[in-house]
Amino acid sequence: MPQSGKSQRIGAVKQITSHSNPIVKEIKGLVAQRKHRSQSGLFVAEGLKLATDALEAGWDVRYLALGPAGRDNPIAQKAAATAKARGALILEVSTAVMSAMTRKDNPQMVVGVYGQKLLSATEVDPKGSNLWVALDRIRDPGNLGTIIRTVDAVGGAGVMLVGDCTDPFAVEAVRATMGSLFHVPLARMTKDEFKALAEKWSGTVAATHLKGSVDYRTPDYKEPVLLVMGNEQKGMEDDMADACSTLIRIPQVGQADSLNLAVATGIALYEVRRKHLEL
Amino acid sequence: MPQSGKSQRIGAVKQITSHSNPIVKEIKGLVAQRKHRSQSGLFVAEGLKLATDALEAGWDVRYLALGPAGRDNPIAQKAAATAKARGALILEVSTAVMSAMTRKDNPQMVVGVYGQKLLSATEVDPKGSNLWVALDRIRDPGNLGTIIRTVDAVGGAGVMLVGDCTDPFAVEAVRATMGSLFHVPLARMTKDEFKALAEKWSGTVAATHLKGSVDYRTPDYKEPVLLVMGNEQKGMEDDMADACSTLIRIPQVGQADSLNLAVATGIALYEVRRKHLEL
Repeated sequence: MPQSGKSQRIGAVKQITSHSNPIVKEIKGLVAQRKHRSQSGLFVAEGLKLATDALEAGWDVRYLALGPAGRDNPIAQKAAATAKARGALILEVSTAVMSAMTRKDNPQMVVGVYGQKLLSATEVDPKGSNLWVALDRIRDPGNLGTIIRTVDAVGGAGVMLVGDCTDPFAVEAVRATMGSLFHVPLARMTKDEFKALAEKWSGTVAATHLKGSVDYRTPDYKEPVLLVMGNEQKGMEDDMADACSTLIRIPQVGQADSLNLAVATGIALYEVRRKHLEL
Repeated sequence: MPQSGKSQRIGAVKQITSHSNPIVKEIKGLVAQRKHRSQSGLFVAEGLKLATDALEAGWDVRYLALGPAGRDNPIAQKAAATAKARGALILEVSTAVMSAMTRKDNPQMVVGVYGQKLLSATEVDPKGSNLWVALDRIRDPGNLGTIIRTVDAVGGAGVMLVGDCTDPFAVEAVRATMGSLFHVPLARMTKDEFKALAEKWSGTVAATHLKGSVDYRTPDYKEPVLLVMGNEQKGMEDDMADACSTLIRIPQVGQADSLNLAVATGIALYEVRRKHLEL
């Protein structure tokens, strides 16, 4: 994982009105390109709610940019004070700069830049009633963010990104998590690393698969549970499916070919947790 | 509903290479603006799968535009022949024109223009084991399209759009339905019309609501069932909720504030249909 670069921080406040300011350009790059995010180990999350979530969960904050509305908001002021005390640089920017940074006509009052956190395969430590989700080459950032949000809602332990997945730190993915990104551990791994993990998994490893003949409501999901979901178009590769103990299927009638991936994951997660979830 | 304008059709083939061709401009307008879609009663659906779905389901097709790849594809050729026989104008366009029409770098090989279909409140005729979903002021076209896709997957009877909802015929919504738009009847109505419908509904009218104290797994969903879901941010207005017979709630743990609307709808729909859906 890249270093968070705490030593470079100044814990100060800086006014910015120029679009060509180097920090503005850096944030634009983080919004626009995965390459910039990967190289720096940083990412952008928009909005006061996400800033509050990130700070409460103890995430590493590099910059907190406040537009005019943010500077007038007591909660945003408090977030800025917390971030500053932790060594972040606070940016006071114009609405035009905020809009340019995030490529949005109606920008949020607060935009934060945080350090990425991604576990490796060896750091995944399933135990007790843990519920993990593994995603095989998922392509859509909205689906990924929505799945992270659902995993949070069912009290899941984390999400594994297997193979070439879309970037969980892309702005669209972060936005779709609605803050759950800061609560749900993410791990990135190769297919071989996943297969090794699945092989020694002590509970049920259930994959939704076209070849699945087991109704998703029938398995006795033995804990810890690992739920495996495939790519939006192509589903799951056979050797991934072979590494799973149970191939499940969500029944469908009507003329739809399939369910949306985030919806199917939600339906399966609520079934796996059926005994746990009570009002 | 606007007239489909069959009399203006010529059932012919036309080559187009100019971006300023009036039909190209018309299609661009349908992609870009709800106003153009409402005034003409037309909408755009991208892709060969959706064209095939639309034709099989007997939807009114106005134009079918084929890019170079579409003209070489036997299934696309067959779709074009069917559309032409029904009076549609077939457009043979360059990749550049196709790209400009749909504002996509990698356009589909086929793009169709179809007549909208929207039922009124009085045309909703619930019976037997029908399952309807009503959406109160839903904002996100991706959520709407995904919900239509899920309603299709559970064999639902249709979707009601209550109040000021996002346009089901917007390109993003149509895309998210994955073709289910052509299989699932849609009705548009005011809140008062919805309340009148809900009042005389013979089965269960269940709404997910913050005030809901009934676990979504406990009601004896009496058929026909009407499942009501609120706006993404604001949920449901109190008088809408008052018109429903049961206020249900999907339990959550963790730190997520809520579920994504399309995911919550999917979880509730699979619960309502639990006895019906078998592999």
